[in-house]
Amino acid sequence: MATQRIIDFLAQNRPEGPCLVVDLDVVQRNYETFTHALPDSRIFYAVKANPAPEVLSLLANLGSNFDTASVVEIEMAMAAGATPDRISFGNTIKKERDIARAHELGIRLFAVDCVEEVEKIARVAPAARVFCRILTDGEGAEWPLSRKFGCAPSMALEVLEHAHHLGLHAYGVSFHVGSQQCNLDAWDKALGEAASIFNTLADRGIQLSMVNMGGGFPTRYLRDVPKTHAYGAAIVDSLHTHFGNHMPETIIEPGRGMVGDAGVIKAEVVLISRKHADDPIRWVYLDIGKFGGLAETMDEAIRYPITTIHDGGDVAPCVLAGPTCDSADVMYEKKPYDLPIALTIGDEVLIEATGAYTTTYSAVAFNGFSPLASYVI
Amino acid sequence: MATQRIIDFLAQNRPEGPCLVVDLDVVQRNYETFTHALPDSRIFYAVKANPAPEVLSLLANLGSNFDTASVVEIEMAMAAGATPDRISFGNTIKKERDIARAHELGIRLFAVDCVEEVEKIARVAPAARVFCRILTDGEGAEWPLSRKFGCAPSMALEVLEHAHHLGLHAYGVSFHVGSQQCNLDAWDKALGEAASIFNTLADRGIQLSMVNMGGGFPTRYLRDVPKTHAYGAAIVDSLHTHFGNHMPETIIEPGRGMVGDAGVIKAEVVLISRKHADDPIRWVYLDIGKFGGLAETMDEAIRYPITTIHDGGDVAPCVLAGPTCDSADVMYEKKPYDLPIALTIGDEVLIEATGAYTTTYSAVAFNGFSPLASYVI
Repeated sequence: MATQRIIDFLAQNRPEGPCLVVDLDVVQRNYETFTHALPDSRIFYAVKANPAPEVLSLLANLGSNFDTASVVEIEMAMAAGATPDRISFGNTIKKERDIARAHELGIRLFAVDCVEEVEKIARVAPAARVFCRILTDGEGAEWPLSRKFGCAPSMALEVLEHAHHLGLHAYGVSFHVGSQQCNLDAWDKALGEAASIFNTLADRGIQLSMVNMGGGFPTRYLRDVPKTHAYGAAIVDSLHTHFGNHMPETIIEPGRGMVGDAGVIKAEVVLISRKHADDPIRWVYLDIGKFGGLAETMDEAIRYPITTIHDGGDVAPCVLAGPTCDSADVMYEKKPYDLPIALTIGDEVLIEATGAYTTTYSAVAFNGFSPLASYVI
Repeated sequence: MATQRIIDFLAQNRPEGPCLVVDLDVVQRNYETFTHALPDSRIFYAVKANPAPEVLSLLANLGSNFDTASVVEIEMAMAAGATPDRISFGNTIKKERDIARAHELGIRLFAVDCVEEVEKIARVAPAARVFCRILTDGEGAEWPLSRKFGCAPSMALEVLEHAHHLGLHAYGVSFHVGSQQCNLDAWDKALGEAASIFNTLADRGIQLSMVNMGGGFPTRYLRDVPKTHAYGAAIVDSLHTHFGNHMPETIIEPGRGMVGDAGVIKAEVVLISRKHADDPIRWVYLDIGKFGGLAETMDEAIRYPITTIHDGGDVAPCVLAGPTCDSADVMYEKKPYDLPIALTIGDEVLIEATGAYTTTYSAVAFNGFSPLASYVI
């Protein structure tokens, strides 16, 4: 999955230490694929997936909107050229003073999932648009989706009514089917719930406008995933089923799906050893691990493809671990990872499809190691 | 556990955002407690637990030695005033060029757990002292100890013999009983294994000198833990049992036990909500979570004491979560955390015993949030 541009960059620059290289051409292609797959939806790129200024500028120039998690991310999106009307404050957990700051910056679209958050927004961002996130079960998603965000659909009715009564614009409903979602039907159930909320509130005199369908679009790691246009077709079908001739405005928030396959991490084999003389499993230690950017290997959730110069030769199972003195810094052990028998200490490896959720996850200085370096080309 | 000095500092300075405050008086008292509990052991502070320059300087002045995980940590210990003979490169996973750099800086004591690492050291740090880490089962430890570090005792014989034959000084054996170890007997079994390695190698003409007994000394979180002098007495007993009149030089490497209870994190309640109208569990969202410094809540391993201004009133179970848009950023859910019913959005809370393994674990910029601020007083 490493593009020729990435391979050439690494060959010419030979950066020291582990680093991520992101190819903007892939990001652009992904953006265009989303616009074709869901031509009637506005794209709000999930900045948290990779907030590199070059990525944000490219997407701002292409016309993307931005889903942000904090005031800092709002400021980064604006610095990249996005006007406030193209930015959503999509975190349901916000300090009131951060909502006020966002409002000062011109942000008028906020996520909520409870009346307490609605009240904060009513106090410091009067007349703003709010959308209420509802819970989904996340079935079929590879990265765990907890009950952290969203409320039961029955409670969403109250939340949006409360917003309306406080003078806010009860604007819509959002959901998230779970990150790295490979089940095309996952959107259908949530869209059914959303339509039901639209109908119930219409009966109470509140006209919602928008469905935010969140992210969840996968990156290809080791297993094949459905193509973006297949997601698009399934989603458009479900929208027609549930909304008929009254199609709402729709938003999608791709993060992983936008940048995941655009980046590759170059790493180095620091040590290969065994735990006892006739141990069948080798331990392979890289110069990057769970605390250096590969946090999504937590519970072995995301299984990245790894390529080496020995690919094609015989392989054997390895435990893959990071370089820190933390015993929890082990990436793949329950299900060992097959790597070439010829792999040697000092070899470089490429950890593919690592453009999303890597740089910003890395620890600031654990064990004295620097955060993951990043090059955007 | 927050000292009056910490409480006064927070009251006077009212720092914005989540922050750790470390009281150096507590660190000093912990250092002195270790020296009294194990007067014949040299203390190598595990820098990774909290590398704040003020902590390192205090310990350097008190006479501590330093266990380091990387060249950066070596440089930090030296900047704090430690001479190279007081520094161990205790990470078993090292790039050869980092070993060479450490050797240039004057470091002569290195950890190993396989012949491959011995060979690196022999090439670039000739005649250095090496100690071989052996595997222990970690039973009784609260923070998981994997098989990541160390080798079977039978393999340690080969590793140390190989070092000897390559001209290195086969210096000793190390083990780690698991972090936050509350079982006083945990050291006994490992010391028995160490003594057996000493004896076997003596028969082969190699005289080992040192046993590095690692860390594992706990911090008091919610449950009582044995006192340091109880650990000391148990360890000294075991040393006499296994080594008799031939007592080795010994080292301990406290990290959590040195700084854990010296620090307190001040955080703020961002949101309190429920997931449906009659949900018995409240969700309490703080402005710090798993990616902002509380990584050790992973799998709900470490359960920090939390104090609020409402303590003493009625409590009810809460799910405790962080402020990021990551669904995995939930700290206590499987076993909900009891917090006062009177707790309100905007309240400050103190997360106690957070002096170790917090600042450096925090993500560099996840969701745009800054790494955990730290004040050492």
